[in-house]
Amino acid sequence: MITSSANQQMKRIIQLNNKAKTRYGQRVFVVEGMKMCMEAPREDIVGMYVSESFLEDGRKAQVVQGRHYEVVSDSVFRMVADTQTPQGILCLVKMPEYNMDDLLGSQKAAHILILENIQDPGNLGTMVRTGEAAGITGILMDKATVDFFHPKTIRATMGAVYRVPYYIAPNLPEAIEQLKAKGVGIYAAHLSGELSYSQPDYAGHTGFLVGNEGNGLSPEAAGLADTLVRIPMEGDVESLNAAVAAALLMYEAKRQRG
Amino acid sequence: MITSSANQQMKRIIQLNNKAKTRYGQRVFVVEGMKMCMEAPREDIVGMYVSESFLEDGRKAQVVQGRHYEVVSDSVFRMVADTQTPQGILCLVKMPEYNMDDLLGSQKAAHILILENIQDPGNLGTMVRTGEAAGITGILMDKATVDFFHPKTIRATMGAVYRVPYYIAPNLPEAIEQLKAKGVGIYAAHLSGELSYSQPDYAGHTGFLVGNEGNGLSPEAAGLADTLVRIPMEGDVESLNAAVAAALLMYEAKRQRG
Repeated sequence: MITSSANQQMKRIIQLNNKAKTRYGQRVFVVEGMKMCMEAPREDIVGMYVSESFLEDGRKAQVVQGRHYEVVSDSVFRMVADTQTPQGILCLVKMPEYNMDDLLGSQKAAHILILENIQDPGNLGTMVRTGEAAGITGILMDKATVDFFHPKTIRATMGAVYRVPYYIAPNLPEAIEQLKAKGVGIYAAHLSGELSYSQPDYAGHTGFLVGNEGNGLSPEAAGLADTLVRIPMEGDVESLNAAVAAALLMYEAKRQRG
Repeated sequence: MITSSANQQMKRIIQLNNKAKTRYGQRVFVVEGMKMCMEAPREDIVGMYVSESFLEDGRKAQVVQGRHYEVVSDSVFRMVADTQTPQGILCLVKMPEYNMDDLLGSQKAAHILILENIQDPGNLGTMVRTGEAAGITGILMDKATVDFFHPKTIRATMGAVYRVPYYIAPNLPEAIEQLKAKGVGIYAAHLSGELSYSQPDYAGHTGFLVGNEGNGLSPEAAGLADTLVRIPMEGDVESLNAAVAAALLMYEAKRQRG
């Protein structure tokens, strides 16, 4: 049993939770909790850790029977876990790898969420979760967007992190131009959009561009869009939460596609 | 200048931030930041506090010129503020008061969001913000829902807390029956809904019932609905974030009402 947070494996988990650089260096991320560990593709799990009291619970212990895991004392487990009340199980998982073409899907018209400078990991995770439900084919992000494998992002995806193709573009404008060259129509959520978001026809290859929580899209990114669309707002509301705006756009495409 | 957190006014702010009971006892809540203080109805502000360095910034000082405020040392301000990097201004605001009838609005068909056991204050605040934008006439909540005036709820409303009529029902089923008696059709977001959420006609008096983040609606609450509606989901997603589900429902009604 591991009883010290100075243990090399524990130090590795702490670093993976704290630093995106470590995650990308090792191409590994940490997931916590029963649901996230059980939904991880088995062949991608490179480490499983359970707490002492997790193993003492017969029903929980059964779930990991026959799997390879390390046992960690409760106090050390609490120290390395990112959640405040950890469930007593965490896994190290290999990052899925995709390229730009993977975002287009193959079975149907492309449906891509494009993010610029999203800062809240909970917002990003919610967008991934909602995106999978809305049937998107992939997510494209710029490097300024919070990390896809941030512990809080992962938690908010509720498992969608394993299944939604993503690509972090070194240069977002170039990546958007590439999508346009492949016939993807780019619709940017923008306060000065002339069309309401439910007016365009999203049957063809579609990309929705959503910007930063506080400032929206940069003029450069908005300028790359084929169409600026606005989400109408009543009252004195100045803007919507970014994850809510993305959800309305993605579900409008889904509604139209039937 | 107030330089001690043992000052009676500082102790009051801390208690108002920490305890719903104190807030309802005094019918007062705390808002932080420039935007929230400036949007508060002036006649409802019962106290304004600014930090020393806020006042030293000429542009900021100008905003509070001619207003009555107390100056607080930076270190004490940080101690009493709920935000981690406070903007140096906070206000005590009288709670707006509404009754059940206020939720129906007067200008158009009622459009009410009904919440059961929502636990995340950020989710609740986002629903209030999205609700105002979608033109809802009011929000009805049960007592198990996180407090409407929780500091994190208030922050997530981005000001909508001042403008959306709300009512916390001592008995939610009874309150729902009252709405039904007034001709409000109740549509519950439910995984086993037979209709997709975009199928019903929401032109008449409409109430959307949304349940707990983890468990959805209780069977009792769902049983009170006239219609269970489901939000279709692709992939392996089990459910949507509660604030996203509420947004899709409220904006579908708005879209239909044109």
